[in-house]
Amino acid sequence: MTEDINALRRRLTAFATARNWEPFHTPKNLAAALSVEASELLEIFQWLTPEQSAAVMADSDTAHRVRDEVADVLAYLLQFCDSLAIDLLSALSAKIDRNEHRFPVPEADSNT
Amino acid sequence: MTEDINALRRRLTAFATARNWEPFHTPKNLAAALSVEASELLEIFQWLTPEQSAAVMADSDTAHRVRDEVADVLAYLLQFCDSLAIDLLSALSAKIDRNEHRFPVPEADSNT
Amino acid sequence: MTEDINALRRRLTAFATARNWEPFHTPKNLAAALSVEASELLEIFQWLTPEQSAAVMADSDTAHRVRDEVADVLAYLLQFCDSLAIDLLSALSAKIDRNEHRFPVPEADSNT
Amino acid sequence: MTEDINALRRRLTAFATARNWEPFHTPKNLAAALSVEASELLEIFQWLTPEQSAAVMADSDTAHRVRDEVADVLAYLLQFCDSLAIDLLSALSAKIDRNEHRFPVPEADSNT
Repeated sequence: MTEDINALRRRLTAFATARNWEPFHTPKNLAAALSVEASELLEIFQWLTPEQSAAVMADSDTAHRVRDEVADVLAYLLQFCDSLAIDLLSALSAKIDRNEHRFPVPEADSNT
Repeated sequence: MTEDINALRRRLTAFATARNWEPFHTPKNLAAALSVEASELLEIFQWLTPEQSAAVMADSDTAHRVRDEVADVLAYLLQFCDSLAIDLLSALSAKIDRNEHRFPVPEADSNT
Repeated sequence: MTEDINALRRRLTAFATARNWEPFHTPKNLAAALSVEASELLEIFQWLTPEQSAAVMADSDTAHRVRDEVADVLAYLLQFCDSLAIDLLSALSAKIDRNEHRFPVPEADSNT
Repeated sequence: MTEDINALRRRLTAFATARNWEPFHTPKNLAAALSVEASELLEIFQWLTPEQSAAVMADSDTAHRVRDEVADVLAYLLQFCDSLAIDLLSALSAKIDRNEHRFPVPEADSNT
């Protein structure tokens, strides 16, 4: 069974602490690293058509690379939130609530 | 109690489906949107010193903006993974395993 | 007549000096700002099809926004190069030379 | 003598045409590639202090890498502008004009 997100966050914190990387992990540096990793994910797709982009997991090397980059993005996102004591899942839950008000669902056609 | 990450992922999928946004949600477009949101988070920090970056949550407007941007990053990351059937938490767990081999912990001083 | 790129670089330097912005303009901060502006340009295109992306200048508001973002990217690129005494045009000229060796032109069909 | 920016732009166009890369060079793809290259530049700086970031050119390998990345950023910026017939230098000149109105120079102290 996969670890839950809090267990992963704790492993990341222990990993950085054991290697004395914490002085580098300012919120500013982690935000930069997060954006760099998100760009590495985008790089895989930059020259692909929309159709090719939907088929990237069919090639095992590319699939590995995609999984590796999404892992890096989540790793830095969790470490960023840790550095500022932000509850990531609560932040997303609140944001979805706001978006449900901001973008109401278009009404269905009343004749059908 | 906060929803878990799978419940949030399902809410995001339902949200996009109800608004007919799925045709826009190709893996390529979602990777671009993810990187744009990560940059919006970085923008908050771009002119700050390391010390100022550690204190951003003390201002309630900035704190709101930071939580809003981390929520957007996670939202697009979850939707990206959904579009390619990637198990995000397993991907991170596997990546931490690899990094533990790649970056061994420096040995403690043998005299202590 | 438009100013040449060195005249623009000098205007940017004078602009920052007059406003006492130079302490903020470390190479690291300027690299972050450059990447943020590049993402703001990408944001205009993130949900567009390739065909729609080729037609963005037909709408005058979008055209203005695109020109504004490319200007911001060049502004930060010039200020970044200024902060490290890099000759930007020489760097590009040298890179094109290297790429011409790295990616040879495919030979034309010998029958024609 | 270094080529001017228009000569470099023409070399980039000829380079892409000779290799049949033009079908990939939609404005959307070039905007994505530009943002990826800007992130590769930022990556060099992500863990550095402001002081370390000002000294990167002292190491010849890092200096080469920095010049390589600024060249890539300018290359994609020029190709992006080419794809939409944008005059890059005019766009920057107009932006500086607007910024001079938007951010007036603080008045000097009248007693001195």
